Amino acid sequence: MTKSKPVHAPIEGFPVEEGEITVGGMPVSRLARRVGSTPFFAYSRDLITQRIAKMRRELPDGLHIHYAMKANPMPAVVQHIAPQVDGLDVASVGEMQVALNAGMAPELISFAGPGKTNEELSAAIAAGVVINMESAGEMRRIAAEAKVQGLCPKVAVRVNPDFELKSSGMKMGGGPKQFGIDAEQMPEVLAELANLELDFVGFHIFSGSQNLKIEALREAQEKTIDLALRLSDLAPKEPKFVNIGGGLGIPYFPGDVPLDLPAVGAGLAEILPKINKELPNTDIVIELGRYFVGEAGVYVAKVVDRKVSRGQVFLVTDGGLHHQLAASGNFGQIIRKNYPVAIGNKMSAPQEEVADIVGCLCTPLDRLGDKMELPKADVGDLVVVFQSGAYGLSASPTAFLGHPVPAEVLV
Amino acid sequence: MTKSKPVHAPIEGFPVEEGEITVGGMPVSRLARRVGSTPFFAYSRDLITQRIAKMRRELPDGLHIHYAMKANPMPAVVQHIAPQVDGLDVASVGEMQVALNAGMAPELISFAGPGKTNEELSAAIAAGVVINMESAGEMRRIAAEAKVQGLCPKVAVRVNPDFELKSSGMKMGGGPKQFGIDAEQMPEVLAELANLELDFVGFHIFSGSQNLKIEALREAQEKTIDLALRLSDLAPKEPKFVNIGGGLGIPYFPGDVPLDLPAVGAGLAEILPKINKELPNTDIVIELGRYFVGEAGVYVAKVVDRKVSRGQVFLVTDGGLHHQLAASGNFGQIIRKNYPVAIGNKMSAPQEEVADIVGCLCTPLDRLGDKMELPKADVGDLVVVFQSGAYGLSASPTAFLGHPVPAEVLV
Repeated sequence: MTKSKPVHAPIEGFPVEEGEITVGGMPVSRLARRVGSTPFFAYSRDLITQRIAKMRRELPDGLHIHYAMKANPMPAVVQHIAPQVDGLDVASVGEMQVALNAGMAPELISFAGPGKTNEELSAAIAAGVVINMESAGEMRRIAAEAKVQGLCPKVAVRVNPDFELKSSGMKMGGGPKQFGIDAEQMPEVLAELANLELDFVGFHIFSGSQNLKIEALREAQEKTIDLALRLSDLAPKEPKFVNIGGGLGIPYFPGDVPLDLPAVGAGLAEILPKINKELPNTDIVIELGRYFVGEAGVYVAKVVDRKVSRGQVFLVTDGGLHHQLAASGNFGQIIRKNYPVAIGNKMSAPQEEVADIVGCLCTPLDRLGDKMELPKADVGDLVVVFQSGAYGLSASPTAFLGHPVPAEVLV
Repeated sequence: MTKSKPVHAPIEGFPVEEGEITVGGMPVSRLARRVGSTPFFAYSRDLITQRIAKMRRELPDGLHIHYAMKANPMPAVVQHIAPQVDGLDVASVGEMQVALNAGMAPELISFAGPGKTNEELSAAIAAGVVINMESAGEMRRIAAEAKVQGLCPKVAVRVNPDFELKSSGMKMGGGPKQFGIDAEQMPEVLAELANLELDFVGFHIFSGSQNLKIEALREAQEKTIDLALRLSDLAPKEPKFVNIGGGLGIPYFPGDVPLDLPAVGAGLAEILPKINKELPNTDIVIELGRYFVGEAGVYVAKVVDRKVSRGQVFLVTDGGLHHQLAASGNFGQIIRKNYPVAIGNKMSAPQEEVADIVGCLCTPLDRLGDKMELPKADVGDLVVVFQSGAYGLSASPTAFLGHPVPAEVLV
């Protein structure tokens, strides 16, 4: 028996009609004309709504679900999501304005980030959002600024846990970290907090992100709840909420298996009763970004040139790493692996050649697909990069080489 | 005997006065007040001018020197460089407008890039710049558009050589590539070119970039000249120029040794007479980007928080990978290595602690320095990242997490 080559998880949100991928019901070639230019990002309203409904269905009743805007801060996306969630998490004053513009109540917005400036803290205090404090120094700066403004800001303590989320794409906790306050330092920090004019509202414990392993997630969630219970004993008052972070991953690369969300829900249903019993007035919050939007978006670029160099087929597109840095393999990856990619207007054609898909930039880093099995594509065809709804445009160097910024549409 | 730890090459362009790094003669703390906000990029006019003068001095007389704007497209920088060089290379219509705005004659501007759209080709033809053709398909599209406009555009042929520049940071030639036309395909492409209404002006042969090895550079230059001579025999007429690319690197990481420019010049002085004799009317062009500006720029961020997590000191700044992606180790690097970094306002203090320098973003990727020996720094101090004059701001995801775009100043 030979081991079969790992493949991408099937893409289900963009049904094929008459040989074309559709986004929100519109064939991709018509969508490209509607947008008026390529490349572009398109996000599906329905897929986002369905994903939120699925979370509501599979995760325990009463669990609060927050959207971490950093995954996709497009105002229309945030506006669409805001009425469907219990809160928004922002990472800058810029994101905070988008969240407020979307009509979210300030007390349901939390502002996290290890390097908040005095100007940012001042804006957050004036807005009345919850500030996730990342250090004792930041706590003191907030208290000083609050005195100037004559306000008593809502603050949560971000904790750097004494464990990590195993098998994570990104580890945000455990060991020495710039994020949050070490769990071991909490007794003295919480004692100091009790004597400041700050309104303590909760804990934020975030151990990692982009995880596809049920067991690792469950272990981290269990430890997070235990830590929250221990810390609550030290807190100035019962926390209004405990934010247990997120970490739910999506499949990007060949061999990745989509997360079993019912199993995640079943695990949480076993873990949560303990904290619900001990802290009956505390809301438990799960905070997700990528899991809301990552699979709901595509990046579409047009083939500008087709060339054969020393026997290898290159599809040269008008897109590239300046729009979709992560898909090029240059954003935190050690080894470049392919995102799922298709020729969006040739879905009924047989996959009869192996091609490299590259961008328009003068750098060998600018690759969207290495040796992919595809239908024979030509100039004018549309390359669709899936799993592009999160950390796409906003996480890419759009000014690199001076091309126009691509459009984003919510369909 | 123990092997000593590799160190960064000395930084010489930013003299210390009264304990502070100066940029263009201004102490960094005053410069920060002049800019009015941190973080910012500052580029030194004098260092750029000195670098160009050094190239004129050390490289053979008569060699044309072009600036590849992609390294730093800030209009003031381009404006400063334009009168000192023999031409500019652009990678997009956006860069082309900056080059034209700077007053460079169109025929001294060359436009390269593997995925030029019809709209870009149209703009380049209308402008009258030299178009570096990347494929036979692109050549035909140029000819068709030229007919529509009733113009005969200047074109050069970009060649994918049948060799590579060894030990390069980026390989741009050799093997199958999206760049240029394979050397082996040139006979038929040049024959076709002779029958089109296009004004053939030269060859562009670019094998790699960011190289610090004299021998590798010399070998590639020698092969480039030989290839140009072979191709010139097939060309419709004697080329007006042969652009031999660039490739001269700068030291970024511990152990990197600055390039011996006199040795590069001596090598070229031995190689060039052959082509000068055979093609007496052909200009030889060297095209450099990073080598002009990389060492002339610094990125300056302010320490916003100082914290100790599990025994490790973190200096949390208001900057990060959204401004200086390459320094974070996330732009093409396999292993993260430190750029040279200093506490710019504490240059006379002893290096008495080991600290991690991080950015303000909520991601563990956001690192500017790992375990660096530094003076004891505190909130308000200025972290200076050297070697930030090229591929800094324009190659970074500025919109990531919604912070303001930093200022750039030419001092």
